Amino acid sequence: MSLVVQKYGGSSVADAEGIKRVAKRVVEAKKKGHQVVAVVSAMGDTTDELIDLAREVSPISSGREFDMLLTAGERISMSLLAMAIKSLGHEAQSFTGSQAGLITDAVHNKARIIDVTPGRIKDSVDEGNIAIVAGFQGVSQDSKDITTLGRGGSDTTAVALAAALDAECCEIYTDVDGVFTADPRVVKKARKIDWISFGDMLELASSGSKVLLHRCVEYARRYNIPIHVRSSFSPLPGTWVSNEPRGDQPMEQALISGVAHDTSEAKITIVGVPDKPGEAAAIFRAIADAELNIDMVVQNVSAATTGLTDISFTLPKTDGRRAIDALKKQKEGIGYDSLRYDDQVAKISLVGAGMKTNPGVTATFFEALANAGVNIELISTSEIRISVVTRQDEVNEAVRVVHTAFGLDSDSDEAVVYGGTGR
Amino acid sequence: MSLVVQKYGGSSVADAEGIKRVAKRVVEAKKKGHQVVAVVSAMGDTTDELIDLAREVSPISSGREFDMLLTAGERISMSLLAMAIKSLGHEAQSFTGSQAGLITDAVHNKARIIDVTPGRIKDSVDEGNIAIVAGFQGVSQDSKDITTLGRGGSDTTAVALAAALDAECCEIYTDVDGVFTADPRVVKKARKIDWISFGDMLELASSGSKVLLHRCVEYARRYNIPIHVRSSFSPLPGTWVSNEPRGDQPMEQALISGVAHDTSEAKITIVGVPDKPGEAAAIFRAIADAELNIDMVVQNVSAATTGLTDISFTLPKTDGRRAIDALKKQKEGIGYDSLRYDDQVAKISLVGAGMKTNPGVTATFFEALANAGVNIELISTSEIRISVVTRQDEVNEAVRVVHTAFGLDSDSDEAVVYGGTGR
Repeated sequence: MSLVVQKYGGSSVADAEGIKRVAKRVVEAKKKGHQVVAVVSAMGDTTDELIDLAREVSPISSGREFDMLLTAGERISMSLLAMAIKSLGHEAQSFTGSQAGLITDAVHNKARIIDVTPGRIKDSVDEGNIAIVAGFQGVSQDSKDITTLGRGGSDTTAVALAAALDAECCEIYTDVDGVFTADPRVVKKARKIDWISFGDMLELASSGSKVLLHRCVEYARRYNIPIHVRSSFSPLPGTWVSNEPRGDQPMEQALISGVAHDTSEAKITIVGVPDKPGEAAAIFRAIADAELNIDMVVQNVSAATTGLTDISFTLPKTDGRRAIDALKKQKEGIGYDSLRYDDQVAKISLVGAGMKTNPGVTATFFEALANAGVNIELISTSEIRISVVTRQDEVNEAVRVVHTAFGLDSDSDEAVVYGGTGR
Repeated sequence: MSLVVQKYGGSSVADAEGIKRVAKRVVEAKKKGHQVVAVVSAMGDTTDELIDLAREVSPISSGREFDMLLTAGERISMSLLAMAIKSLGHEAQSFTGSQAGLITDAVHNKARIIDVTPGRIKDSVDEGNIAIVAGFQGVSQDSKDITTLGRGGSDTTAVALAAALDAECCEIYTDVDGVFTADPRVVKKARKIDWISFGDMLELASSGSKVLLHRCVEYARRYNIPIHVRSSFSPLPGTWVSNEPRGDQPMEQALISGVAHDTSEAKITIVGVPDKPGEAAAIFRAIADAELNIDMVVQNVSAATTGLTDISFTLPKTDGRRAIDALKKQKEGIGYDSLRYDDQVAKISLVGAGMKTNPGVTATFFEALANAGVNIELISTSEIRISVVTRQDEVNEAVRVVHTAFGLDSDSDEAVVYGGTGR
């Protein structure tokens, strides 16, 4: 019998009505003859409310205890979902991350899964139950302490269980219809993508698309678990993310999968860096020692007259303060002139495996931006992605013109396709 | 180093302020040189809110899932308390019932403790931590499912841990100053009791006193763990419950420990029962088969002319409907005339080991009631308790006159004492 892992996010189980609606969805899958494992997040705002409570009692939210606190959220949603399913006449059992065998390292608040031993889940579904599993949580291997997996942890729980249980697929239920060619709130004509390769999805996720997180897609790719992202409010199919399109999916892949944008980053420019070996290393060692993650990095050609260059990079705004502090401390060692900090930037990224074989993509991208009067401040490229940094107040217009330029608009007949097989 | 187990109820940790206040109390005990284990209930109304949610999603609240749901409550309060303690500069770790080694049977919603294996708690306090433990919950021995201990479960958790850890005592913190000679809301002159024997406390608990539940006191008596019931809002000593008074406690025990009352019961009278062997057995077999607990039972002398008698008993009002149904089903088999159901009754109980050796107690009790015009409907006695059933609207007046008659009023010099050693 085929096994399906489903995951329902906080907005899908925000209240009693939501839980009952999810219970029906879960039972539908069971009735179709699948064994079903449903992973749930905490209800709606529960996690935020718990965080607020923690801040009220203590200025320091300690790792171990903070995890213990947060995991109460999924415990509530999972047991309620099990009850709702039972009241529909089906057997259900809920399991904590620990009971489900989600074994992690001991890094509280952002633990990594190191093993999955889902024996109890397997027994439960083999006995005919629907198994409900708390997302986002695990238990540390050595100390047996409760851990949480950090942002997007419930998606990762679902994919990890799907891999360990050899599931047919992992369905991620959310409050949108799937992955779109651009953020539908910005681009009204954005199209739902029927199928996208793991590779393109990874680039979209790291470029600002919020439907799936990079970590979850990476895990799914490693274990080759097809993901179906779909709405818990609608019966329509959503977006399949996998290595290869399925039989009923188009074999022609669009040249461009989508346009992502991200306004959560800031740009730091280090002005007047001597253009000699070791300078960039000194700068990024200082950043790394402060445990900060950076995104794009660009170094200009140095001015011939001065022998000085500028280095710019982007990073999450929330890390901006610490990055500036770390660089200021090393001013002597690095030997730069000054620092510029700019949080009014936005990043726009074009993603698509098709661009590898189509040299016109970059030109079309830049022309569209130029025609709309959008100035490009930084450029960075990967094999299947081009990203630019622009002014933040221009980002919505920029995304729209690029989306149109590549024929992605839903009423356009111009969608540029190429015969691909995914990657 | 001596180890103290403290227990804080839901009203003590109702909000962030409460949790911070409790954190200070816990730290005070630690500073006095004790190893400290603090057992907590869920915050304020959390449990009721979770029950409401369960009712919204399902008309049937299933045992296993219901327990999983409810245990989220203590998980929240215990982790917040640990954080609050850490922010005061002391190390703290929180543990679920399962982690703390509270092993129970598999009867969900009212599990019984069958073993306590507090190895992790012992290690934690030996390492210098304050250990915080979730009250009310455990894990079933065979199925490893999460269980809850039912009403008053957190007190039982605390006493069970105190026994398993060989604690010096178990402090039960609550929102009143201790055990009183009567309910202070009814008797303004009620006195706080400094020390009371396990035996008298057990009788008070089963007669309507709500400060400690029978089950917790019974457990403490079996393992000889002194209980100190006291207020989390005040530094004053409360009431010690133990086998023997401690060195600093009065060796003279009051003739009467207190007057308890209970308005939660109903009276059922079975009229016209043939006075022959086996009748009472048939009646109470019917009640037992319906899994109902009864309290007082009284059978009148049968009328010589008819050979028929009446049997009355009291039981919780909440079980009244089911008891009547069970008896109606067996009407043929038992062969009675009719049933009377009366939920306008109250029970008043006088408790004190001293009454064993003082034959005047019963007379003084009944005279006090008679002088106040209170009619007695049923009487039942144990070695150290006399209980009567009266009309419910007379109960407050009845408790007051009895309290006064035995010299228990706080401004009275007449307190009747006897040289006892406790029991």
